[in-house]
Amino acid sequence: MIHILTEKIKRTQAPIVVGLDPMMKFIPKHILTAAFAEYGETLAGAGEAIWQFNQAIIDHIYDLVPAVKPQIAMYEQFGIEGLKAYLKTCAYAKEKDLLVIGDVKRGDIGSTSEAYAVGHLGRVQVGVNYFSPFQEDFITVNPYLGSDGIKPFADVAKAEQKGLFVLVKTSNPGSGEFQDRLLALGSSIDIPIDMASEKADGLISSRPLYELVAEKVVEWGAGHMDAASGYSYVGAVVGATYPEQGKRLREMMPNVFILVPGYGAQGGRAADLAHFFNADGLGAIISSSRGIIAAYQEEKYAQFGQEGFAEASRAAVLDMIVDISMKRIF
Amino acid sequence: MIHILTEKIKRTQAPIVVGLDPMMKFIPKHILTAAFAEYGETLAGAGEAIWQFNQAIIDHIYDLVPAVKPQIAMYEQFGIEGLKAYLKTCAYAKEKDLLVIGDVKRGDIGSTSEAYAVGHLGRVQVGVNYFSPFQEDFITVNPYLGSDGIKPFADVAKAEQKGLFVLVKTSNPGSGEFQDRLLALGSSIDIPIDMASEKADGLISSRPLYELVAEKVVEWGAGHMDAASGYSYVGAVVGATYPEQGKRLREMMPNVFILVPGYGAQGGRAADLAHFFNADGLGAIISSSRGIIAAYQEEKYAQFGQEGFAEASRAAVLDMIVDISMKRIF
Repeated sequence: MIHILTEKIKRTQAPIVVGLDPMMKFIPKHILTAAFAEYGETLAGAGEAIWQFNQAIIDHIYDLVPAVKPQIAMYEQFGIEGLKAYLKTCAYAKEKDLLVIGDVKRGDIGSTSEAYAVGHLGRVQVGVNYFSPFQEDFITVNPYLGSDGIKPFADVAKAEQKGLFVLVKTSNPGSGEFQDRLLALGSSIDIPIDMASEKADGLISSRPLYELVAEKVVEWGAGHMDAASGYSYVGAVVGATYPEQGKRLREMMPNVFILVPGYGAQGGRAADLAHFFNADGLGAIISSSRGIIAAYQEEKYAQFGQEGFAEASRAAVLDMIVDISMKRIF
Repeated sequence: MIHILTEKIKRTQAPIVVGLDPMMKFIPKHILTAAFAEYGETLAGAGEAIWQFNQAIIDHIYDLVPAVKPQIAMYEQFGIEGLKAYLKTCAYAKEKDLLVIGDVKRGDIGSTSEAYAVGHLGRVQVGVNYFSPFQEDFITVNPYLGSDGIKPFADVAKAEQKGLFVLVKTSNPGSGEFQDRLLALGSSIDIPIDMASEKADGLISSRPLYELVAEKVVEWGAGHMDAASGYSYVGAVVGATYPEQGKRLREMMPNVFILVPGYGAQGGRAADLAHFFNADGLGAIISSSRGIIAAYQEEKYAQFGQEGFAEASRAAVLDMIVDISMKRIF
């Protein structure tokens, strides 16, 4: 699947994933009105509004980008009806030949991680039959529980030729609270190989937790490489809001695809993105959610109006392609 | 809600939560056969089997324990139909006056964490109406993204008088991979106050990440205390498999309720649990899943047979109450 992603990025020249995080305040009035007229101001009404909103946006951007990234929390908050909209959105995106990165940030241990993995990326067995309830192509996962929490995901991703993006350094202002903590030296495992000589010279004293996680991402992916693309099935999430860390992590994980949230609304600028890419211009995909799906609410795209929200999203994607492409080369 | 939990523990004398993690291999043949006869070997058939299995277990244990803890992954793997069984299970447990701890391990940032929080613990707005799709009393959450990922959960928990259990030190064999990493000293924030003098004496050099997370759990809960019980709405998860760490964490977090997984099947023994409790015998709730819901598959409870699986679960709960109570006092 990572091979298909790289091919799509080369073809579209757009290393961009559109985040489908449909907060109710982003949905234009005419869509809400129609959905509520049919289903009432209910969970089903919310699900219908989300689905209509997403469908129109997908229709207007599917030829421009390789992938969409629905944030499952925005659907799950509406219960079963919201999750139905999530599934319809995933299925419709795939119908339009888009890859789907499920931003689910799941993570547990052993057989529990395996249950999430088969449900989202693989096939779950019922009697003699197998089903793929969620059908994402990639999902995001949380590493806090350690290797035995990640390996079931990596194994299913490999078996199904799907992919993961493991949270390494997230885009939020407080991500450093735990992720940036410097680890004490004292055991060789805490010293990256390429720094061993520097350590001997007394030049470094420690390294942050996210670098250890990055090292593990490389390790988890080592047996899960996609020969065609040269990238691993186990990718990483690194926020656009931390360009210096992004540069270092790019170097540490040359064969790891990086999902980069935080561009636009969260403050990440195109100039900050250059170092997330490899020299071939690949290796990273930049996510934008609000900046695209709620573009019509910005002054810059106000001329589209509420009715033209999906056209505004298309214009925002085209602008983003230009914005990003000026900073990188294939 | 934490007040209700402590009252229920006092009344039942059972600081026990029954984990409802219904793997298909735990479900007796007669339940599978009936469910598949009605719905086929489909996702709906799996959901029905899970629901029938859970209902019988709840019927046989609801008077003995204060709470159940459904592991959402085991339902989510069957998609919408699995999640319907999750919702039915939560609703039925509440009908039987059990508290529900949703083991969802969600965690994200800002408005996304808020979406999970309102969906699981609070109320989500649709037009002029509010809905509570999931209705758990407590949920587990993952701290890797930092305070700005946890605060939306804590705020909703406080507003709704519900509760959280934040992953601090998990029960799995590999939990130490990141959680046990010693943090470098160098800033005062890395030194717990009660260790400052020891540090001056050169007795300590650093502390593990999970202790920093524990300190944050105390901080997140400080403004979210339940006056009636003396415990915070923000609890912690600490694995029974790490008794020494549990003792230290109990001391560090005196007003934090601890959810303790890992008893039984994962290797945690009753003798290891004593230090997870406060001197009043409260402050912790021990989770057991497989050891109770799949008791009939163990030699010890084999006399119940498949048909008597729920009676076997009841016997296993009664045995667990004795096993644990010998190690603690109220």
